[in-house]
Order: sequence, then structure tokens, then C-alpha cells
Amino acid sequence: MVRGLVAGACVLAVVTGCVGVEPTHGPSGAPVPTLAYRITQSLSTEVGPRLAGTPHEAAARAWAVRWFKELKFSRVSVEPFTIKGWVREREEASIVSHGGQALAVTALGGSISTPKGGITAPVAFVASYEDLLAAPPGSYAGKIVFVHDRMKAARDGSGYGVAVRKRSRGAIEAAKRGALALVIRSVGTDQTRFPHTGHMNTDKAVKAIPAAAISNADADQLERLQAMGAAVRLKLVLKTRSFADAPSGNVVADIVGVEKPEEIVLLAAHLDSWDLGTGAIDDATGVAIVVAAALKAAGPEMKPKRTIRVVLYGAEEVGVLGGDPYAKAHAGELSKHVMATEADFGTGRVWRFASKASEADLPFFDSVAAGLRDLGVERGNNSSSGGADIAVLGKAGVPIVGLTQDGTTYFDYHHTANDTLDKVDPVALEQNVEVYARVVRAFANR
Amino acid sequence: MVRGLVAGACVLAVVTGCVGVEPTHGPSGAPVPTLAYRITQSLSTEVGPRLAGTPHEAAARAWAVRWFKELKFSRVSVEPFTIKGWVREREEASIVSHGGQALAVTALGGSISTPKGGITAPVAFVASYEDLLAAPPGSYAGKIVFVHDRMKAARDGSGYGVAVRKRSRGAIEAAKRGALALVIRSVGTDQTRFPHTGHMNTDKAVKAIPAAAISNADADQLERLQAMGAAVRLKLVLKTRSFADAPSGNVVADIVGVEKPEEIVLLAAHLDSWDLGTGAIDDATGVAIVVAAALKAAGPEMKPKRTIRVVLYGAEEVGVLGGDPYAKAHAGELSKHVMATEADFGTGRVWRFASKASEADLPFFDSVAAGLRDLGVERGNNSSSGGADIAVLGKAGVPIVGLTQDGTTYFDYHHTANDTLDKVDPVALEQNVEVYARVVRAFANR
Repeated sequence: MVRGLVAGACVLAVVTGCVGVEPTHGPSGAPVPTLAYRITQSLSTEVGPRLAGTPHEAAARAWAVRWFKELKFSRVSVEPFTIKGWVREREEASIVSHGGQALAVTALGGSISTPKGGITAPVAFVASYEDLLAAPPGSYAGKIVFVHDRMKAARDGSGYGVAVRKRSRGAIEAAKRGALALVIRSVGTDQTRFPHTGHMNTDKAVKAIPAAAISNADADQLERLQAMGAAVRLKLVLKTRSFADAPSGNVVADIVGVEKPEEIVLLAAHLDSWDLGTGAIDDATGVAIVVAAALKAAGPEMKPKRTIRVVLYGAEEVGVLGGDPYAKAHAGELSKHVMATEADFGTGRVWRFASKASEADLPFFDSVAAGLRDLGVERGNNSSSGGADIAVLGKAGVPIVGLTQDGTTYFDYHHTANDTLDKVDPVALEQNVEVYARVVRAFANR
Repeated sequence: MVRGLVAGACVLAVVTGCVGVEPTHGPSGAPVPTLAYRITQSLSTEVGPRLAGTPHEAAARAWAVRWFKELKFSRVSVEPFTIKGWVREREEASIVSHGGQALAVTALGGSISTPKGGITAPVAFVASYEDLLAAPPGSYAGKIVFVHDRMKAARDGSGYGVAVRKRSRGAIEAAKRGALALVIRSVGTDQTRFPHTGHMNTDKAVKAIPAAAISNADADQLERLQAMGAAVRLKLVLKTRSFADAPSGNVVADIVGVEKPEEIVLLAAHLDSWDLGTGAIDDATGVAIVVAAALKAAGPEMKPKRTIRVVLYGAEEVGVLGGDPYAKAHAGELSKHVMATEADFGTGRVWRFASKASEADLPFFDSVAAGLRDLGVERGNNSSSGGADIAVLGKAGVPIVGLTQDGTTYFDYHHTANDTLDKVDPVALEQNVEVYARVVRAFANR
């Protein structure tokens, strides 16, 4: 349910916000709310956590339909699909060898449960995913494997790809080697006790084992005990639940072009979030950026030459499950998608314009990029995938623009309980809106 | 149990640490471990959380006895006393009016349980403790009272006294006005989803109600919903347990003076911690500072003129319950306590020397303060209470030195799960040790 949703045209009020919402201040100290900030605030406050396949994600779809209609988008529709649902019900871990100290732990998305009484076992310390791969079969029989390499912060988020392998495939590789369970140092760059959840892969050929992440501070605690020469034993209790045919869906809305309505400029973000936080930077800001940028690009008359389409994808976090349904449902018009871009990297300023364009089209892409220089955006390469949800479009030949945001602090909050509205920088958010709007305007009115 | 405790004289190793502990780096980037850092690390890692009256606090006493003996203190003793024990077993809260969003919540120390099914009720927003006091009887009948003023950060921690009133007496005052339960914005200066626990008072004349704190980010969420005009309903589920005659105790250790052994310079810190974190800055750093400073002041020969005594108090967090037992057990020698000081404010640098001295003695105190100027310490006033545990000594006429640490960030972590070793600045810790050592040396060898 989306109770307390702001009513009527009030969502367009710019300065004072709706129904008495006071201007808020973000990290940059700038007064808000702008439209983008209010969208971020509304989704993360009134809907809050919205795990894919749950009633909370359904509430987010209803929320999106309402905002789109109030903002005068056309052809607003929900394009439903079903997924395998998954929810966490209980998660606890403790250092039984050292007074039963509680660890800050969270199940990885898709993990099975432990037996009801949990798993208590010695810890096998594994310094990296490479070390895990290098271990022979049987290495971890009877053990809880703890993979504890630390993610490095970087503006382009490049530390994620390296660090996330232990989350994506760690349980599979540990199980192959006899482990009872997998515990990982969180894939995150903060120094707190927030564990970072996230999707894990499964492999039908390998026995599933429970998998969880502990916070960086807790991972340090285990490393210290190991360095002291202590034999470390953990207890892990996870209770999760999976269910078939859980409803999800993409929400699609257009600002119909007046000259070439069949040609589409597509902006993407995802509606679902992890359950621990309120999904403010992942991905309410993305939703806000693409909606606000679409309107800004269309102008007050709402009459772009080509159609500007916003697609708010469902079920991104749990395996990027919305991309294929969209591509399938719109297979007939994919050749008319003149450009697709996505916003799913938080609230940092855009600093790079990458692309995937044909050689013939590169001069135009270059000219669009050149028009962003005053906003601090440099030209990136021409091998952008554009983002998770639209990767399938890129593969189908849709030209892609990838606008890289500054992700230096993004992974401090990513997939944690601490992903809340206060982490949003309203000034950087507006830079994003302006960058996306210029790009969309250029393609829509080309 | 304190397994994995470093063995034998190894605790005095300075550079490489004990049994393979690698040098660690703190926020200032300085390599460690010094003795003070290793004490902090050992207590917060090997013992971890040590709630008063539990086996974990008993483990901390055993830990302290072992360290004192290994560090060649004399007359090491545990002075036991009993307290009313209290533990938390379950704590959950959710915004039932808005999709059941989970709140980051923790019971206040001493809170009673809710009924098993929790309390679900509309929220009465109360902007401050003053507003709570101003409300007439019956104002909050059938409501969960939410007191949501925000604590201000300050170097001297002065925001705490103002903000903590809602935690100490909020439940009493809300109950007087008919409330079903109290929820407060955490008494803390961070912007995260860590709730801050802490002791609450009780009043036998007033019906007890359950009381809990939510994080600053969650408090903001509720404020936003209120600002949007929404009717906010919460569900609160607390399960806690109290038990009589829980063991606690103070650990006392001396470096016996060679000229006037009966005269005592007392250094205090507290051994117990809250259960959510590992009590690194509250108060493992205090323990480390006073132990390391006592040794430094005594010099390598361990032959001060007067006795240097370290008292590691028990049960500070749950109502400062160790102060009276010490004063009672040592009533006969209180007049021989020539000075008492305490360390219980984290890891920030000392910037002020306050005191409580007789007029005749002031020139000497002034000269001690003057000897700290090169360490950035200024002279404070002469009305210091010295700290919670030693306040009773000050009232009994023991001269007091109050060394004020920089507490600007202390309340970001205070009483949260996030109070862990990584928050300790090893460079500032050493400044503390040097300041305390100079003060103790001056009094011990006067």
C-alpha cells in the first residue's frame, strides 16, 4: 500500500513541496525540494523498502503509475511478469569461540536456510575469491568458509566487479569444496557494522549451502582473532523463504513525440530495492533522475520530436529480471529505439559520457558529449553496456549512452539498512537531471 | 570466557604485538600497536560486548586481573557486588501505517517488555522533552509517544545532557500522561540507522511502560511522514528480562608507592559496556588510557612515591553502580586519596584540564595544568566532578582532576553496535596516555 501519498497535482509544486513537507537539506547543504528530490523522498519514505516479488514492490508500481499520471505522462502501463520470490525471516551469527559475540549479519539474496538450530562450525579463513578457487576439493569439509577480501572504493566503482565475485559465486565454489556454509566480508566500502546484502547465483549441479555477509567491522574482528592465533568457531542461523510465481513488473510511461512518435528515446531505472534500507540511492535517485530528466527534456509543452519513454524496471536486484520481459514485449519496436540510457548508481555527479554507437553515428554522440563539458562531464569510450536493465537492449543493437556517476561513496551504503534519504545529495542530483535532460533532448529532437 | 588471550609477558611487546598480531592502522594512519592500543584491542576483540551483570562482564573482570598481573601491578583484586541484571531478547518496530517498514530500534536499558504480540498504536509526535513535560495528564492515552529532538554535536559533549533527558525520564513522564510506550530519537549525533541504547530511570510511583530508541535516520522517516500529513501508526515488540543478584564488581590494582604507600592517586575507567557494540570507545579506550598512564607515570622501576591505583569499575552503564561499593569498601582510606581522575569519553585528544581542589592546593593543580600546554591542553575551571564513577569520591572530598577529551564524534558511536575498534584513533589515544601520565606522575611524586 502507498498510504499518505501526496495527492493530486500537488506533486508538481516546486518550492514548498506537498502537504506541508518542509524543505530538506542534504549533504551539500542546499535547500530542496526539487521535483527529483521529491520523487526520491516520496518513493523512499512513503513506499520504503520494496523487495522484488513482494507486496512492497507492488506498492512501488502503484506509486509509479500515480506519479506518471499526475506528471502527465501518456500510455502509462504496468507490464507484469512473475519471478521466484525470496524473503529473509531470521538471520543471526555469533562467535561461539569468543563469548558468543553477535555478528552483524545478513543473508545473501536467494540463500537457503540453515537447519533450524543453525550451523556451528570452525571457520576456514580464505583471503580472496582466487584463493577459494585455488583450493582443492574437500578443502573445507565441515567448515564455514569465510572469504574476507575488502572492496576498494573508486570513483568509477571498479572495485565492485572484483569484490562481488565472492558474493555471486562464493557459495557455489565453497560448496564444491565441502563447506557447510559461506560467510563473506560485505561487498562494501564503509567501516561500520552494516552488512551488505545482494544477489547470489545458484548452480543446479552443486549442492546449495547457506550464505551470508557480515559487516566490515565484524570481518575485522574475525581477522584479528585469527591473527591472535585463536581457533574461531561461528554459529550461523538463517531462515529464508522462497515462493513461486511472485508478481513483479515494469512500469512504462511515454511522452509521445510529435514528429516521429514511433521513434523512442528510453530512460531506465529500477523500482525494486533491497529490503534492508529504503532504497534511496539504489535506486530511488535513479527513478527520480530519469523521470525529472524526461520532463525537462520534453519541455513545458511536452512536445518532443520523438517519444521519450521512461521504463522503471522491476526485480533488478534479484537477478536483473525485468530486462528480458521488456525486450520481448517490445521486440517489434526495438529497431525504433534510437537511444537507451539508465540511472542506477546513486546520487554522485555524472563525470563521464560513454556510449555504444555505430561508427557512422559517433560524431553525433561526440557532439552530445561535448555539450556536457560545462557540467564537468568528459567523453568516455564507445563500449558502454549502459547498465544492467538495458544491457539486453544494447545487445539487440539499440544505441547506448552510459552516464557514469561518481561512485566513490556509493558502496558505503549500497544494499545496507543505511541506504536512506539522508544519503542523497540534492545538488548532485540536480546535476544528474540536467545531464540526462540534455542528452535526452539531443536525441529526442535530433 | 576469554579465550585466545595473549599469554605471559608477551603483552608488553611493543612493536609487533603478541602472538602474531599485525600492526594495525587507525583513522590517523599511524602504525600501532602501543600498549594502550593493544589493551583496547584485546578487551574489545577477545571479550567484546560485556553487559553488566552477565557472564561477559565477568569475563572482562578475569581479563583485567590477568592483564594487571602480567603488567606487574600489585594487590590485584576483584571487589564484587551484585546488581539487578537486565538483558534484551527481542526488539522490533515497524510503521504499520506505511507498508510495515521496519525501524532500526533498540530497547532502552531497563525497559520492560511489551505484551507478546507487541503494542500497535497511533504515534503522538512530541518535539522535545520540554513539550512532554508541558503536556497535561491524559494527553497521550492510547498512544505511543515519540520524542524526537536531535542531539547537537559539541567538542565538550554538552549536547548530551540536554538530549539524554528524554532517554532517562521520558518513559516516566510519558506514562504519567497515559502513553502505552515511549519511542525516542536516539541520543546520538550520527546520521545512520544505528539506534543508541542507554540506561533509563524508573519511578516506583509511576506505571512502567516499554521504551526504545530508533536511529536518527528512522526518526527522520517518521518526521517526514508526519510532515506529509500522514497518520502514523507503529508496532513495537520488546522482550527483555530482568533478574536479581546479578554479579558485578570493580577490579582494583596498585603500583605501590615507595615513600608514602598509604597515599593514593586513583585512575578510573569502567569495564562494562553496552551489549550492542564491542565497547571500544566506551570504555575500552578509558581502560587502556588509565592502565598505560599508570605504568608510564610509575616509570620502568615501578617505584612512585605514592601509590598509583587503577580502578576498573563494573556496572557503570546501568546506573553507575560501582562507585558506591568502592567508596564504601575503601571508606577508611578515602582521606588518603590525594587525587582521582577518570577516562570515559572515547578516543579524542584531551584539550582541557579541570579540577576540584581546595583553594590552598590550587597553585599546585595550576602548575600541573601548565605542564600540559605543549600537548594542547588548556586550564579549565575548578568545579569538575571528574566523571560518573568517581563523583562519589569528589563528594567525599577527594581532590579531582577532570581531563576533557574532544567528544565531537564520540556520540556518533556511543551505545551503538558501531562502537568497535576501528573507531579508535591510536594517535589521539597516545596523547591521552601522555596527558594522564604527566598528571599522575605529578601527584604521585609531589
